Amino acid sequence: MTAPLHEARPAGVGRALPDTQQGMRRRNLARVLHAVSAEGSLSRAAVASRIGLTRAAVSTLVDELIRWGLLEELGPERPGRVGRPGSALAVSGRGPAGIGAEIGVDHLAVCAVDLRGAVRARAVRRGANRGRAPEPVIAELTTLVGQVVAEAEREELWPAGLAVAVPGLVARDSHTVVRAPNLEWRDTDLGALLPGDWPLTVDNEANFGALAELWLGAGTPREFLHVSAEIGIGAAIVVDGQLLRGTRGFAGELGHVPVRPDGPSCACGGRGCLEQYAGQEAVLRAAGLQPREDLVGLLAAHAEKGEEGVRAALRDAGTALGIALTGAVNLLDPETVVLGGALAGLSPWLLPSLEAELTGRTAGPACPVAVSPLGPEGPLLGAAHSVVRAVLDDPASVTKRS
Amino acid sequence: MTAPLHEARPAGVGRALPDTQQGMRRRNLARVLHAVSAEGSLSRAAVASRIGLTRAAVSTLVDELIRWGLLEELGPERPGRVGRPGSALAVSGRGPAGIGAEIGVDHLAVCAVDLRGAVRARAVRRGANRGRAPEPVIAELTTLVGQVVAEAEREELWPAGLAVAVPGLVARDSHTVVRAPNLEWRDTDLGALLPGDWPLTVDNEANFGALAELWLGAGTPREFLHVSAEIGIGAAIVVDGQLLRGTRGFAGELGHVPVRPDGPSCACGGRGCLEQYAGQEAVLRAAGLQPREDLVGLLAAHAEKGEEGVRAALRDAGTALGIALTGAVNLLDPETVVLGGALAGLSPWLLPSLEAELTGRTAGPACPVAVSPLGPEGPLLGAAHSVVRAVLDDPASVTKRS
Repeated sequence: MTAPLHEARPAGVGRALPDTQQGMRRRNLARVLHAVSAEGSLSRAAVASRIGLTRAAVSTLVDELIRWGLLEELGPERPGRVGRPGSALAVSGRGPAGIGAEIGVDHLAVCAVDLRGAVRARAVRRGANRGRAPEPVIAELTTLVGQVVAEAEREELWPAGLAVAVPGLVARDSHTVVRAPNLEWRDTDLGALLPGDWPLTVDNEANFGALAELWLGAGTPREFLHVSAEIGIGAAIVVDGQLLRGTRGFAGELGHVPVRPDGPSCACGGRGCLEQYAGQEAVLRAAGLQPREDLVGLLAAHAEKGEEGVRAALRDAGTALGIALTGAVNLLDPETVVLGGALAGLSPWLLPSLEAELTGRTAGPACPVAVSPLGPEGPLLGAAHSVVRAVLDDPASVTKRS
Repeated sequence: MTAPLHEARPAGVGRALPDTQQGMRRRNLARVLHAVSAEGSLSRAAVASRIGLTRAAVSTLVDELIRWGLLEELGPERPGRVGRPGSALAVSGRGPAGIGAEIGVDHLAVCAVDLRGAVRARAVRRGANRGRAPEPVIAELTTLVGQVVAEAEREELWPAGLAVAVPGLVARDSHTVVRAPNLEWRDTDLGALLPGDWPLTVDNEANFGALAELWLGAGTPREFLHVSAEIGIGAAIVVDGQLLRGTRGFAGELGHVPVRPDGPSCACGGRGCLEQYAGQEAVLRAAGLQPREDLVGLLAAHAEKGEEGVRAALRDAGTALGIALTGAVNLLDPETVVLGGALAGLSPWLLPSLEAELTGRTAGPACPVAVSPLGPEGPLLGAAHSVVRAVLDDPASVTKRS
């Protein structure tokens, strides 16, 4: 899949860079790279006019980016234009790549994405991970990473970083999975288990799914609530193009918002949490189906066939989602709610009752609900792209690593 | 009331300033002013070491701030220290002042706060505003503003801006009160009714209350949820020291989070919203009391006397608040929840059941709940301080106005 890295306002640019001459130069390098990335190809003059620097200043910055292998010359622009023909620039399809990895309850996946946003290598292994110890799972993941990196290196790409999506809570600014109930992992430091060759990021799959939506979705707004599900239900909150992470990194636990405060007990200690009504296991139970791999496919197949019990279970799940989302929308006032992950595939049967709750419980216009085109692909792509974005946001960082 | 403008990391500094040489200079002016403000008084050398600039650079910036009337010299520091004695600097107690105003359901209030954070003038008018047209209310408010400004000017202060707190939803980046149900105002542009002599800000009272907590509270964290009530229930979400406003500016509508989805109908269109259980009118009704002015005082007086009906009503309100806050805490993962406004005065009777819900519904340690020391003073102080902060965050802005 090739996706352009479009974004009108690259919010991450320079956020972490110091306010010095050197910091300003690094921010300007990022502006140049983002400008070219957003357009696919651009002349130096066009870059200059777009980011409001002089042509001379831009040329110096471009030369640096070419030297580092981040930009390349496409040759002279087509004639017939006014003025001296300039050479068009493009983001390099070689050089740094983002390595994304996903630890799913039923699978492991790894991919490499180049600076242009194209997936250049990919490896997947199906098989249940629930209840397995972290070590053998991470050993398998490391093998897949090795395969993908080897494939990428054959195309003159080198890993600029590894980002891993996990179905659980990750402590902020750490590599520690504090709780992943559906893997049965607790306080697991993935940093100690993964290869230490590249910068490592570990984050919740809902967060990476939301970032994928932000970066790759067509017309995704900069403020939205992204809801996804594998076994549990997670959400990610995006405000002004940035993830809201929470003090400990645990924000977005939509699955444990009370929907019916006197409802069934939940493993979290609460009662009547959303997961008790809309989590995949609850829906399977309500639908009278047996759990197996690919729960979503199973539910969708039965609903597709028109089985009323399954449809009713999904309708009730949609109602519970609508109640929890009414609360979330009242608190956050997002521009839209995006259903991603497994929920995207079940949306035909969830949406009517979900939207009925949202609309019925709102005086003004209800918050619109969109279905993610990325669906279950989101977390893996978001992970790989987060590494790519880090390079685009601070190109000078690669000089320390390459 | 005098409060120091302490803050370890002035988050607002330069947020809106362009990334140019000129922008960098303006940010450095802000850093100098914030450093002195945080300490009360400071020598040039101490400022330089604190913000990481050379002594010479700081001297130039300080001279400018003195010329603009934002800093003043306190005279030579006490002898006995090592090195050449420097003159201590302090933020000026004359010059620009923030004018804060509050439109309450039962009162109007205005105050002037100087750059040191001291309230220097104040005016209040009691009287019900519910159901009155905006024009006469704003005319009265304008009279109070005139009195406060005249009093401030006698002390060599001049208004750097006017900020107005209202009990309703304000459209983002506008002066328009979209909906203030307890005043019965809709789509009211206060910009057209207020004097146009100074920069104007209009915002929800919960937002200004939260900012007051952030700026003036002792040890308030940078990520918290601030819950307040006048007649309705509002909340403000602070993330990394900044308000989360929502797409339309309507974030924080905690009062309309569904607590019991099949509960009583609410004016918002929903059912079983938090306001139906914990809004002041609902509590009065449950307690069997007649509405009048100063509802909080009435409830507190009866609860104080040990009236079981009133205590039970407040206990039930606490339970409903706890259910809604469990959802909010799961979504936002704040460091703490702060009860402000009217809720602060009722906290002895609300807190036990509120905390029982929060704790009982959480697997790990529950989010702590604090009671605001500012209470109902918060919104007015937050409004005035927001003007002061704008000056501290961009001192050069006053040169365009003074």
